[in-house]
Order: sequence, then C-alpha cells, then structure tokens
Amino acid sequence: MMDKSEIENQIISAVDAARSTNPLVGSVTNAASVSFVANAQLAVGGSAAVVYLDEESDFLAKAGGAFYINVGTLLPLHEHTLPPAAKLLHAMGVPWVLDPVAVGIGSLRTSLLMQFKAYKPNIIRGNASEVIALANLWGFGNKDASNVRGVDSTDAVASAKSSAIALAKWTGGAVAVSGKTDLITDGTIVAHSYGGSHFFEKITGAGCSLGGVVAVYAAVANPFIAALTGTAAYNLAGMRAGQVSSGPASFQVAFIDELYKATSVEIAKNAFDVEEA
Amino acid sequence: MMDKSEIENQIISAVDAARSTNPLVGSVTNAASVSFVANAQLAVGGSAAVVYLDEESDFLAKAGGAFYINVGTLLPLHEHTLPPAAKLLHAMGVPWVLDPVAVGIGSLRTSLLMQFKAYKPNIIRGNASEVIALANLWGFGNKDASNVRGVDSTDAVASAKSSAIALAKWTGGAVAVSGKTDLITDGTIVAHSYGGSHFFEKITGAGCSLGGVVAVYAAVANPFIAALTGTAAYNLAGMRAGQVSSGPASFQVAFIDELYKATSVEIAKNAFDVEEA
Amino acid sequence: MMDKSEIENQIISAVDAARSTNPLVGSVTNAASVSFVANAQLAVGGSAAVVYLDEESDFLAKAGGAFYINVGTLLPLHEHTLPPAAKLLHAMGVPWVLDPVAVGIGSLRTSLLMQFKAYKPNIIRGNASEVIALANLWGFGNKDASNVRGVDSTDAVASAKSSAIALAKWTGGAVAVSGKTDLITDGTIVAHSYGGSHFFEKITGAGCSLGGVVAVYAAVANPFIAALTGTAAYNLAGMRAGQVSSGPASFQVAFIDELYKATSVEIAKNAFDVEEA
Repeated sequence: MMDKSEIENQIISAVDAARSTNPLVGSVTNAASVSFVANAQLAVGGSAAVVYLDEESDFLAKAGGAFYINVGTLLPLHEHTLPPAAKLLHAMGVPWVLDPVAVGIGSLRTSLLMQFKAYKPNIIRGNASEVIALANLWGFGNKDASNVRGVDSTDAVASAKSSAIALAKWTGGAVAVSGKTDLITDGTIVAHSYGGSHFFEKITGAGCSLGGVVAVYAAVANPFIAALTGTAAYNLAGMRAGQVSSGPASFQVAFIDELYKATSVEIAKNAFDVEEA
Repeated sequence: MMDKSEIENQIISAVDAARSTNPLVGSVTNAASVSFVANAQLAVGGSAAVVYLDEESDFLAKAGGAFYINVGTLLPLHEHTLPPAAKLLHAMGVPWVLDPVAVGIGSLRTSLLMQFKAYKPNIIRGNASEVIALANLWGFGNKDASNVRGVDSTDAVASAKSSAIALAKWTGGAVAVSGKTDLITDGTIVAHSYGGSHFFEKITGAGCSLGGVVAVYAAVANPFIAALTGTAAYNLAGMRAGQVSSGPASFQVAFIDELYKATSVEIAKNAFDVEEA
Repeated sequence: MMDKSEIENQIISAVDAARSTNPLVGSVTNAASVSFVANAQLAVGGSAAVVYLDEESDFLAKAGGAFYINVGTLLPLHEHTLPPAAKLLHAMGVPWVLDPVAVGIGSLRTSLLMQFKAYKPNIIRGNASEVIALANLWGFGNKDASNVRGVDSTDAVASAKSSAIALAKWTGGAVAVSGKTDLITDGTIVAHSYGGSHFFEKITGAGCSLGGVVAVYAAVANPFIAALTGTAAYNLAGMRAGQVSSGPASFQVAFIDELYKATSVEIAKNAFDVEEA
C-alpha cells in the first residue's frame, strides 16, 4: 500500500500538472449546475467544453484529456449521446468520470446507467445513496440498503463502503463517495478526506462540480489520485470558504476563489487517512 | 377574514416547517434561471430536483411535497411533459405552482397555459402583465389590459387585482402578483407585501426563483400562506441585501444569504396588510 | 475616418440610450452561460429574453431591437430554429450578433455557421481562433491559420486581423475579436480596446456575455460603435473588478457590479485607438 507521503507527492503533481497543462475536458452535464461545473473546472486549471450532441461528444472524447458524464437532467437525446460517448471513451482509454445523479428516477436514467457498466467509468463520484444504488443496479453490494431521495443522500458515507469497493474492483478505477467525511477507494486502498462545510448541502451542484473537477485531475493522474485530489481540494476550499461566509451564496463565491488560490502543497496536506480495503 | 396576527403565526409555522422537514420539490423550469431557482429553494430549507422528462416529472410529482412549473424556456418535449404532470398533480392533490412566464409568446406556450386551466394550479405567480394575460387567456378578467413585453411587465400590480382574484376563485388556490408592492390573494382576501429592492429587476430569475420558493412553502402550508410567506421572505431579504449592495451581482449574492438567514419571526413581521377582496 | 472624439461621443450615446430605452433583445444561446449573458444584458440596461423554439425566436426577432445567436451548446432543434431566425433578422434589417463558439466542432455547427453567411450577421464576436476559423469557413482569410481548441483560442488577436476585416467587408457590419487586447473593425477602421483582466479566462461565458451585451448596444447604435462600446465596457469593468478581486468568482460578481455602475463617459474614455484598416 502506498504510504501517505507518496500519496501527497502524487497529489502535488496532479494539482500542478492541471494548472500547467490546462487539460481540455469535455462534459455532458446537468442543466441545473452547468456553469458551476465549468467555473470549478477553470478554477483548478482545466479547460471546460459542454456539449449535448453525439457528434460533439465524439469530437471531445478524441480531443480531450478526460471526459465528464453527469446524468442529472436528462433529455431524450442523451439516449443517443451518452452510451456511444462512454463506449468510445472506454475503447480509446480516455479517462472518464460518471456522476450517477438521482439513480433510480426514471427508466431512461436506469437504462443509461446499466449500459455504462460495460464501459467501466474510471471514476464514479456520488453521494452514499447513489453509490449504493449504482452498486445494486450493477449487481454488486446487495448488503447495503440505498435511500436515494431526489438528488439527496439519506445514507451515511460509511454505509456505502462495500458498494464503493465493489464498484472500484469492477471498473479497475476509483470511486469517491461524498458526504460529511468523504471516502475514496480504488478497491484495494480506502482513503478518507476531511474538511468541507455544511454549506455544500445548501448550494446546487456542489457534487456535480466536484465530479467535473475530478475529471480535470483524471487527465493528469491515475483515478485514485484524481478522485482524492479533487476531494481534498474541495474539502480545503470549502473549509476556508465556510470560515468567511455568512450564507450559501457568499460561500459559493468564496469557495471558487479558494479553489483557485489553494496551492498544491496545501491540497496535499489537507487531512486524510488511508487504510487497506 | 383572518386577522394579521393569525396570518403571522401561520407564516412562522410555514418557514419553520420548511426548514425542519426539508420538503422535496420537483421542478420543470427555465434554463435561464435554473440554478438560481434551486439555490433559493435550498436557502429556505427545501430540496430541489429539476427534470425535463415526463417519466421523471411523474416520479417527482408522486414523491415530492409540491411541484413547480415554469414555462420560461420551452422545448418541444415540454408538450409531452407538462400537461401530464399538471394533470397528475391535480388528480393527486399535490400542490403545484405555475409561473406563466412570457405568456403570449408562441403557440406552444399558449397551448400549454390553456391546458393548465383544467388542472387548477394551487398557486399562480407572475408579474402584473402575466397575471392579466393569463386571466384573459382563461376567459376571465376582460376588464384589464395586459402589456406583456418579453419577460417584463409593463403594467402596475394594482391593475392586475381583478384578474388575480378571478384566477384564485377559479383555482380555489392563491395568486401572487409580483412588482413594486406585491399582491397576494386567495379570491376572498387580498394581501399586500412591502419591501424588496429595485435590484430585483436587474437580475434574471428573481420572479422564477420566488415561484420555486413559494412551491417549497406550498409543501407545508395552504396556498395563500405559502404565496405570502415566499413573497414576504423575498421582500425582507431583498430589502436587506439592497442596503449592502452596490450592484446587481453583489445584490444577488447578499439576497440568497439573507434568505437563508432570515428567521421565521422576521419574515412574519415583514410589512404587509390585508383587506377583503 | 472618424476621429476619436467623434467615436467617444457615439459611445456615450449608445450607453445612455441602452439605459434609457431598455431595448428588448432576444437570444438563442449557450446553456453553460445563459444566466451570465442575461445578467450582463440587464446590467447595461437591456431586457433579456432567451428562447429555443423557432416560433418564439420569430416573435422576438419581430418584437425586439436586436438579437443574439450563440452556437455554444447546440441541440438538434437548433437546426430548425437558427437558420430561419437569421434569415428573418436579415430580411427585416434587425441587427443581430453571432457568436461562433467552438467553430469546427461537429457537422451541425459547421452547417449552421455556413448558412449564416448569407444572412450577414451585423456583428460577429469571437476569440481570435474562432474569427479565423469562421473566415476560413466562409472562404475568406486563407492567410491566417486557426487553432480552435474546444472553446479556447490558441491564436493571438493580431493574427486574426485580416480575417476580421474580410468578414466585416462581407457582412457590411462589424467584427470584434476578443483577447488580451481586443480588436474591433468595420472593414475600414480598426480599433483596439485596452483593459480587462486575466480573470476573464477563468470564468465561463465571459465571451458569450460580451456578445449578449454587444447585442443590447446593437439595438441603439451602428455595429462598429455597438461592438466597441460593449468591448470598452467589458475592459473597464473587468479592469476595475480585477483590482478588487482575489479569485474568479468574486471577480465575476464585482465585474457585473462594475458593468452596472460604469458611466457612459467612463466607458467612452476607456483606452482605445483607431487606425485605417
């Protein structure tokens, strides 16, 4: 198992590489949070490009360093855009991040998420309920009970641990479970990342934008490091923003500013621990 | 007629209940203001879920405590999503809020708004021109002249009084007319709510987000109280934000913060008066 | 050639006219930046109305003082909305602004941009790579090499000069090339506008919202003055916001506030120079 200082060095490299190489990351994402996602990606050094059409996701899958798929606000056209995009990304080995928002609502969402199983998203990011529900949908993790309600989690992060590990073992990538204490695993190691703010629950798109940021880091680091780096950056920037904000909107502004300002060493030193899965 | 202190007590109950029960409110809403709507709903204690597809609005209509329909930026699919959603909400008795944005522009918009008449939205929220135009469209209120121009009102709130009363009598719910002084009626009582800020006209989605917030309160209070509570919260938070802002963007940030911070007693004590219709 | 003081007077008139007449500007625009576009248009005195449907863009083309078309996040329906809208605007002589975002990605985008050639957008606004690529697509400017990468420019503004002039000569309108120093030309005069902030590259929709603001000014001024006025307002407000901001999100808030507060004389006096093309 990697020790903490080895992981910290890889986080530093990921943060610095994102800023110095400005990786292009295509997204098919949620209408409710699209500008927040893009602004967060820009804040950490990425270049954001959001599309709806299959021919355009194809283009960006080929041109970009990573890709982000968020199923938050589906349109009928997503049936034709998302499975081919996931298939192409998988075939080409371009890292892609899946955010299974509100898994369980509607047959199109379920059908898309089922199809993604074969295309093994390099990183899956969701709240505990979403991660448990996705594991159940893919036939793993039948020991955890999921309670997705709309887009909110009603499960604690710890309750999604076995689901997260099972998903990571299947994909060969990493899974990040967002919550009070975040859990990140590649199926063999489990990391917990600390910090953040209660205000994250009071702004729309906090989870989505983390998924987008993790995709930026996935262009320059392996899935586990990318997921942990994005989560650590969010926990650090969220903690700092929470200390100077009196409400959710000023928090959101301060948060993006802190995300932009945080140094690679500060992000690497944000509190986390690791254990074997 | 309820007296003011009775109304104030009900406002206090509504604000507190929204915060303590975190009601899930589904929305089919306007692309131009979707994140503002969701953030405002979260600020007052609700849980926001935005969808486009009919199967998903069905799901949320059944799962949620209230629903919000805003026709601001229509897509062709809304023809298949919105009438079934409204029909289901009406049949199930789930409170829903209609925001007839830009009524009069385009035949799809007109057709949808005509179909909504039968499904009696529990709350209608619009500016004076929109309320007058909707009343005309539904065959009421032919004494008022409407001047919708794009998404802006060119009519004064007072000129929409008889239209608002006629609509509320038809639906058996409430109507909120937004403007310099807001008017809220259930067809028998007319309340006026005071406060706000001139900056509301300088930010996109102020009215839409009020509709979304009123839907949160509709999950925990009757239509009249929900409409008055949302309006009072906006007038209080808007007034406070206006006092500390030097431009529309800092106003919008301060406004969401104030919406989040306002106590139930402060919202109930925001200036309003009531009279018989 | 107009001298600088003549141009300054026309800028003053444009800024004041936008504020005093509140021109209605319809838009078919980018999902990733739609609220930023609308808020910027409101900040300079315009009235914003965003639509997707052909019947609605028709309505707004006829009712409004100008129109804004941004091809950032295309949907299949845009094939049916955008060419008829552009045709109608051209036929009616209503000024319209084209933002050829990410030209080169996808066949629908290419097809739409080809069709727009005949409808001669009164103003084209893009980054250097987009302007060069559009000129190449329309059969001009084969001396410049374009390097569009996603939505970012990898070319310097100066390298797009001959493309911009060729496009402006074709349309009989103006072209604005956004970058470190902005270039605005009507095919006979070339102006450079100075100021701005490095934070513009760190927020999504900076270019899109400038396109929307230029459309507001196009309702009250000729294309060259409208393009220069919008650009000068952005450079002034961006420079002022940059001086008080520590990150991209606080910059964006301060920027909209400064856009709202800038006087017509201040905008006219923002540094620029002019030369013959």
